[in-house]
Amino acid sequence: MNTNPDWLQQPAKNLNETARNAAQARQQQLTKPPGALGQLEALAIQLAAMQGRKKPQVDKVFISVFAGDHGIAEENVSAFPQLVTAEMVKNFARGGAAICVLAKQIGAKLEVVNLGTAFDTGNLPGVLQCNIGKGTANFAKQPAMTAAQLAAAMHAGRDSAEHAANLGAQLYIGGDMGIANTTSAAALACALLKHTPQQLAGPGTGLDANGVQHKAEVIARALELHAAHLNDPLEILRRLGGFEIAALTAAFISCAQRGITVLVDGYITTAAALLAVRIQPAVANWLLYAHRSAEPGHILMLDALKAETLLELGMRLGEGSGAAVAVPVLRLACALHNNMATFAEAGVSEKI
Amino acid sequence: MNTNPDWLQQPAKNLNETARNAAQARQQQLTKPPGALGQLEALAIQLAAMQGRKKPQVDKVFISVFAGDHGIAEENVSAFPQLVTAEMVKNFARGGAAICVLAKQIGAKLEVVNLGTAFDTGNLPGVLQCNIGKGTANFAKQPAMTAAQLAAAMHAGRDSAEHAANLGAQLYIGGDMGIANTTSAAALACALLKHTPQQLAGPGTGLDANGVQHKAEVIARALELHAAHLNDPLEILRRLGGFEIAALTAAFISCAQRGITVLVDGYITTAAALLAVRIQPAVANWLLYAHRSAEPGHILMLDALKAETLLELGMRLGEGSGAAVAVPVLRLACALHNNMATFAEAGVSEKI
Repeated sequence: MNTNPDWLQQPAKNLNETARNAAQARQQQLTKPPGALGQLEALAIQLAAMQGRKKPQVDKVFISVFAGDHGIAEENVSAFPQLVTAEMVKNFARGGAAICVLAKQIGAKLEVVNLGTAFDTGNLPGVLQCNIGKGTANFAKQPAMTAAQLAAAMHAGRDSAEHAANLGAQLYIGGDMGIANTTSAAALACALLKHTPQQLAGPGTGLDANGVQHKAEVIARALELHAAHLNDPLEILRRLGGFEIAALTAAFISCAQRGITVLVDGYITTAAALLAVRIQPAVANWLLYAHRSAEPGHILMLDALKAETLLELGMRLGEGSGAAVAVPVLRLACALHNNMATFAEAGVSEKI
Repeated sequence: MNTNPDWLQQPAKNLNETARNAAQARQQQLTKPPGALGQLEALAIQLAAMQGRKKPQVDKVFISVFAGDHGIAEENVSAFPQLVTAEMVKNFARGGAAICVLAKQIGAKLEVVNLGTAFDTGNLPGVLQCNIGKGTANFAKQPAMTAAQLAAAMHAGRDSAEHAANLGAQLYIGGDMGIANTTSAAALACALLKHTPQQLAGPGTGLDANGVQHKAEVIARALELHAAHLNDPLEILRRLGGFEIAALTAAFISCAQRGITVLVDGYITTAAALLAVRIQPAVANWLLYAHRSAEPGHILMLDALKAETLLELGMRLGEGSGAAVAVPVLRLACALHNNMATFAEAGVSEKI
């Protein structure tokens, strides 16, 4: 397999500027002071440009949660044991995890893709098994993935975007599960943004200050090991990433090519968004950002992406959970935009 | 009528600490790192304490929008003509306003109460007419309300809380409509918090910098006029308030007495919350805060109330719109709390 398949460079779909202008004009006519709905106005206009229609909708939402283990976990960088990745995949299958509850509540289609866990999950109902390996290699000692593993993970991500497209999804949410994956995401962000591990490493699932310090040192060591090879985003992803981060990166690119809006979740998925935009800058047009995570380094990634988030609720769970919580905000933005009366319709006087 | 009726001092219902503890214990057992759902965890626990049950729900939501005109509008403190208050009441009746769209979308019961507009609306379907006067008096020249008007407005607010209780509402949202009511709310906050008009006056529906400066000067003049009488919250409300702000204040107190959670909206309703808490501090136990408004002075009121808001979307519309947008967040917090699997149920390992 080729780690740089041609499809990654196929251009993202263009936004529809006619629809954007029509939506913008409509917002000015609705019975409210101009700008009084704040970000909800901008959201409706952005969605109009993405969907190519003056009145956008976010009825059909597709969520794909990618699970994968990380060899870096053996460096003691997580507050939870590695076994939890496989256990949580089982919890996804049973509907007990946060993202399952949220998907049901917002009426979204939820797909779970197991890309490779260190502990066997067996076959599970509703879980796509795509066994790339028993987790990545420890990137403090060697590249996390082989070229073939990277390609397989990205292929799984593209497949997921295709599933979303086949269901007519208007919104794609990618979620992550993988013990130690904040360490991988932090390392990726360091390599892409030239920030220090101290700036990017955070508590993740609940490290104390010593744990965070140790995590930063592990990342610093890994960055030194790979220093000569960190110029290309795909090579950075192969050396420091995870199966789920590679799948998310590919899914975001594929969604942008298909014209499906992506609602980016938190720390891990924002690292994938960074990679996607580095691989193809125009992907940025298709990314909305759900929330600012409690993980301190998230803001640095968001700033680099010029991302305006919708929520800041102190969430730091992953699984796509923060994005799922933001879906009603998108839907209400559309409802207001589509259904409010105009000044003319309502016979309301305009600004003096 | 008595402006200080005994009912205002009837105590707010006590929170249920047993239910709070049970909910807190449950949160610790759910399959996620402790604290990873951020404010959603605290919300579910707070709602449990309010509702007296380990698993709270926010299915039934009651929204009451109070409309009233303000004599201070004649000082040119708004970007919109006073006629708009009556026109918007008609827009509420026709379902074209933002709050109508939002109420429908979140499945909330919407009540509109016209407390007195300068221009006649006629009878309108679905609008309770409670004619206290053709708007308040210009508080830059005299008290905004007579004692009888204040009592009537507060009575209307209590009635609204009673309607919510009769429908079994688990959540009460109060909304406001009244041209120039940010001037009244700013003046109230100045009197209650001893901040300056420069700190509290903002653009409202869209004043430019000169307009904001003029608005602050009008408020300063009014505060000087009433200076000798600004020690008691009810007297402050009578002199500087509006019909809708008085109704909101009373509704919040009445909800707290009945044990109905209030979700406070933006700038105007937060001024009412300040008054309600000054009249009876324990009312604070029943108030949740939906969002931080784009109106700059809002943060000062929120800080005084130690309010933690859920959203910050740059909204500044009123009508209860910011609170309505936050309702799905409350519902998702409850769904997660009630429906996620515990570590024991899911067989997931806990923190190391």
